[in-house]
Amino acid sequence: MRLVRFQLGPGRPIRAGTLVGEVVVAEGRTYALADVTLVAPCAPTKLVCVGRNYAAHAKELGNEVPDKPLLFFKPPSAVIGPGEEIVLPTGPDVHYEAELAVVIGTRCRNISARDAHRVILGYTCLNDVSDRTAQQWEKNWVRAKGFDTSAPLGPVIVTPDEAGGPFHVQLRVNGETRQDGSTTDFIFPIPELIEAITAFMTLEPGDVIATGTPEGVGPLHAGDVVEVEIDGIGVLRNPVR
Amino acid sequence: MRLVRFQLGPGRPIRAGTLVGEVVVAEGRTYALADVTLVAPCAPTKLVCVGRNYAAHAKELGNEVPDKPLLFFKPPSAVIGPGEEIVLPTGPDVHYEAELAVVIGTRCRNISARDAHRVILGYTCLNDVSDRTAQQWEKNWVRAKGFDTSAPLGPVIVTPDEAGGPFHVQLRVNGETRQDGSTTDFIFPIPELIEAITAFMTLEPGDVIATGTPEGVGPLHAGDVVEVEIDGIGVLRNPVR
Repeated sequence: MRLVRFQLGPGRPIRAGTLVGEVVVAEGRTYALADVTLVAPCAPTKLVCVGRNYAAHAKELGNEVPDKPLLFFKPPSAVIGPGEEIVLPTGPDVHYEAELAVVIGTRCRNISARDAHRVILGYTCLNDVSDRTAQQWEKNWVRAKGFDTSAPLGPVIVTPDEAGGPFHVQLRVNGETRQDGSTTDFIFPIPELIEAITAFMTLEPGDVIATGTPEGVGPLHAGDVVEVEIDGIGVLRNPVR
Repeated sequence: MRLVRFQLGPGRPIRAGTLVGEVVVAEGRTYALADVTLVAPCAPTKLVCVGRNYAAHAKELGNEVPDKPLLFFKPPSAVIGPGEEIVLPTGPDVHYEAELAVVIGTRCRNISARDAHRVILGYTCLNDVSDRTAQQWEKNWVRAKGFDTSAPLGPVIVTPDEAGGPFHVQLRVNGETRQDGSTTDFIFPIPELIEAITAFMTLEPGDVIATGTPEGVGPLHAGDVVEVEIDGIGVLRNPVR
């Protein structure tokens, strides 16, 4: 299944539905995809993000490969949906980071890697937009990773029966490919991430685990269009202001 | 006004009300305070916490006084109410940190220090329970500051017309005073914090700004009872397991 949330127009209520081909089905009614506006496909209470989870990306930023997942938060206020504008902060060096996002389906704590599949609702695309200037001096990456619009998410959540991975994660700026990785290169696979996170923290339905970005990060500029594409999920496209 | 949220029993709905003396008023009805269970007085979508905001505490941890507020997040899943148990993580060195919490009343962004009073719903007590072992090695303090039960909050939100500060922030372990500070010692006063945070991030109603802790932080052990007391607000008391 391909789960979406959508509006019939600006300011209208947000509804949940499923996408079947080019048709959205919600509460027994159908809408042409072209007639609705997709919003972020879930409403996380928190986004738990993993840094340096592809060995090649750790290397490109001059970092060591971690022996435990490097975690940080993005707040719900950072989330935008497909098509919404990324508003750049004032720092001169703001980067895209294409990521596979795991969406949690069940309130959970202390989940073993073996049982982790039971708490996964599905998968979507995330762009971990990052202000490298702030990231240089901040101890915790609140300004660097938590600013409004820094977490584009979507366009759909694909359930594991339809797409179970491994996933091919690509990013394009103005149509030009900048990142091209595979989740087979994860340092910490998804079940281990879920075990590590739920060892100390409860995850809620709709919460997001952002699984890290492959090599190839680089700058965004006003006027760019940035796309995260994951095979089997779709394209998350956002203009940059 | 003294704003509370409460339950009439375990598993019952959470209601909002006001506390008048020893009586809770909610939806035109009254309840004896002794007959209800207070829960955390708000439901934040995020907690934005400030490190090293009292010069003396920065010094006791061997840190420099920052030139911008040092910010970090606690997630909503960390919040517990008055009387609820703090469950210690496995690290051997878990500390209390008494803090004044500012509760936001209005969705806001780009608020100047001069206008900051307009977005404040009121003030409550917070205990920023911190796993120092994790804090030593973690880049972002997700495990150190984000574990379940690491954010006791309450017991009431006092609106600014009733208590506008400065506030006297105390912490006791098993009745013995361990922290005793005044918000007059803030490096960054509340209006400046609100300006700095809303410069890049939207705050939602119920969101919490934890304003930092005075000197005197120290360990918690299973069986302890820890109390944060702020004059004009009340006592936030939690047992430790």
